[in-house]
Amino acid sequence: MISAEFVGPHVVENEKKIVMLIMDGLGGLPAKDGKTALEYAKTPNLDALAADGAVGLIQPVGPGVAPGSGPAHFALFGYDPITTDIGRGALAATGIGFDLKQGDVAARINFCTVDENGAVTDRRAGRIATELNAKLCEKLGGISLEGVELFVRPVKDHRAVVVFRGPGLEAEVCDTDPQDIGVPPHPVTATEPGSERTAELARAFLAQAAERLKTEHPANMILLRGFAPHPVLPSFEQAYKLKAAAIAVYPDYKGMARICGMDIRETGTEEADEIATLEKDWNDFDFFYVHIKKTDSYGEDGNFDGKVHVIEVVDELMPRITALKPDFLIVTGDHSTPALYKAHSWHPVPVLTWGPWVRPDTATSFGERACEAGALGLFPSSELMMMALGHTQKLVKYGA
Amino acid sequence: MISAEFVGPHVVENEKKIVMLIMDGLGGLPAKDGKTALEYAKTPNLDALAADGAVGLIQPVGPGVAPGSGPAHFALFGYDPITTDIGRGALAATGIGFDLKQGDVAARINFCTVDENGAVTDRRAGRIATELNAKLCEKLGGISLEGVELFVRPVKDHRAVVVFRGPGLEAEVCDTDPQDIGVPPHPVTATEPGSERTAELARAFLAQAAERLKTEHPANMILLRGFAPHPVLPSFEQAYKLKAAAIAVYPDYKGMARICGMDIRETGTEEADEIATLEKDWNDFDFFYVHIKKTDSYGEDGNFDGKVHVIEVVDELMPRITALKPDFLIVTGDHSTPALYKAHSWHPVPVLTWGPWVRPDTATSFGERACEAGALGLFPSSELMMMALGHTQKLVKYGA
Repeated sequence: MISAEFVGPHVVENEKKIVMLIMDGLGGLPAKDGKTALEYAKTPNLDALAADGAVGLIQPVGPGVAPGSGPAHFALFGYDPITTDIGRGALAATGIGFDLKQGDVAARINFCTVDENGAVTDRRAGRIATELNAKLCEKLGGISLEGVELFVRPVKDHRAVVVFRGPGLEAEVCDTDPQDIGVPPHPVTATEPGSERTAELARAFLAQAAERLKTEHPANMILLRGFAPHPVLPSFEQAYKLKAAAIAVYPDYKGMARICGMDIRETGTEEADEIATLEKDWNDFDFFYVHIKKTDSYGEDGNFDGKVHVIEVVDELMPRITALKPDFLIVTGDHSTPALYKAHSWHPVPVLTWGPWVRPDTATSFGERACEAGALGLFPSSELMMMALGHTQKLVKYGA
Repeated sequence: MISAEFVGPHVVENEKKIVMLIMDGLGGLPAKDGKTALEYAKTPNLDALAADGAVGLIQPVGPGVAPGSGPAHFALFGYDPITTDIGRGALAATGIGFDLKQGDVAARINFCTVDENGAVTDRRAGRIATELNAKLCEKLGGISLEGVELFVRPVKDHRAVVVFRGPGLEAEVCDTDPQDIGVPPHPVTATEPGSERTAELARAFLAQAAERLKTEHPANMILLRGFAPHPVLPSFEQAYKLKAAAIAVYPDYKGMARICGMDIRETGTEEADEIATLEKDWNDFDFFYVHIKKTDSYGEDGNFDGKVHVIEVVDELMPRITALKPDFLIVTGDHSTPALYKAHSWHPVPVLTWGPWVRPDTATSFGERACEAGALGLFPSSELMMMALGHTQKLVKYGA
């Protein structure tokens, strides 16, 4: 009942609209004047929404667990983040719009640099330009492997994706990325007998890739990571009867949204572009996932002021969102990325809900400490979608 | 994932140190000036930690459930307190350092007094001295039973333990303690066919014990309670990769810690002795369970002032703990024992967490009411260990 897998029979369709605005890595730790970035930022619009709405704290996976973007997002989308284990390869492939099919195995490619002994000297090949990446992917796409179709596609910078398509492929294969320099890539190893065929193909692919890239510089080799099959998930349409749009700049987030059956909308690179897309698409969907990346990027860089600035930029855009009159608005993050910690952390994430049927609580601002005392309490991220359905009258009365 | 059974693969070892300070039965009810013992006690050091850290309330087993020490402690240690059912016999045996083996069945012995008709007149034989207990155990240890080895060991006062070792023993056998006086002990009954052999041995043991004790006074008989097999639990090392030390005065708590694979440290009988042991052992372990018994004892005696005093004694010792610079410090109880109620109760227990990566909340003192509004909210005791692992960076990021 409280997750995407089981809610289907209890959902009715209506015209009401939900907006889920995700500031990636929103939660923080006090680092300036005893305040977190969200507390420090000037956010008159978010504070007004908090005063008028209800706030709380969400826990993406569980107490003490710092989540990756995948589990954190699938929890926001209402799926169990522990059983919903989606490999990075599948995320990357769907993220660039590749039409991954049942039976495919996808893996992420990192172009890298190796020395004459085959030891990795740069795991990212100096972060080569996406244009060079595309050219190299064409070279690798020419590789032919017996009995399977092969697709090699650029993602961004030094990241690409490979998809193996053919009968009998499973994805229990270890990464070749040694996560270190001065050592050679790991050999390709299947961890389950059913994945031996995939491992064999990956070995052949790597051998030919080494041959085709050996005269390139700095991207003279590749590493493979996150072998993954096509995920099997009920879509937003199946689970919630929602026509869902995703507005995101970065490929991974588009990929996660596509796996959930969302329509990936064209947008620009700035926060304001994303809101313009929301306005433009307003009449065509009833669920909008809007993803703001830079709160997380600045958090990971340890740039407290940068994170504060992005939050203030988003705050200034809020009136354009509320002007659309969403029936339920969620503002939160997928996880915490405190600038002080410079990484994803386990700290619960402030969440704000607003709409005509939200019962206002006593909170009058949006921040970690204000959310502690909010009416929503501390709860799993995966319950948010149920709250959204309830507040938009999309859930039938349970029992007579 | 969120319990000791599943966390293993997600844990990494590092140098960071965790202290779990348990004041047994800490939670209370208002009984003086409208305050609980914890609220009434002068605790400047704990209050400062609460101001600097984050607080909440923990629930040992579930709403409304007053737990015994066993489930309450196993929950603190991160094990599911409902599925982790460890019999009192096994606790008692491991508590005195007996090397319980797989296949053994242990039961607690209470020396008691019976009249000429065999009716129990004192279930504790006037709480005989431990020295007499030891002498009587030697007598009982001389009993020989066909096909099994028998071990009888004193615990404390009128409490001892018996261990049956041999093939084909199971532990589904009822207590003989009638929990009342003026009635004879219950007969030994197996509740499962597989435990018939154990019941038969216990009957033979009781018959011979009656014979050997009949001239003793007041301990002229024994009652058997809590038949239990060797428990099967992942140890702290297996579950958390933690080298764990237990600092406790009473045998049962040592027993529970030993079952979890903790190293039981020699210590004195006073609270200050326990902190001295913590200081002495600081470099040799990365997890310290420190158990303070008297908060519970005074609670059970209905001695509010006594409980207040113990809390104040512990408060004065806190600077010695924080001087060690633990990376994560937990101060809480295993359950509530309100002096007003004179027994273990179901009321949630105040919990304080403190350390460099704790996000401070708005609480400025440590007490039941202050903890209500804390950032940690109300949560199961069994989640504490996950929080400890997270805050000491011992959990790998979950998912990419």
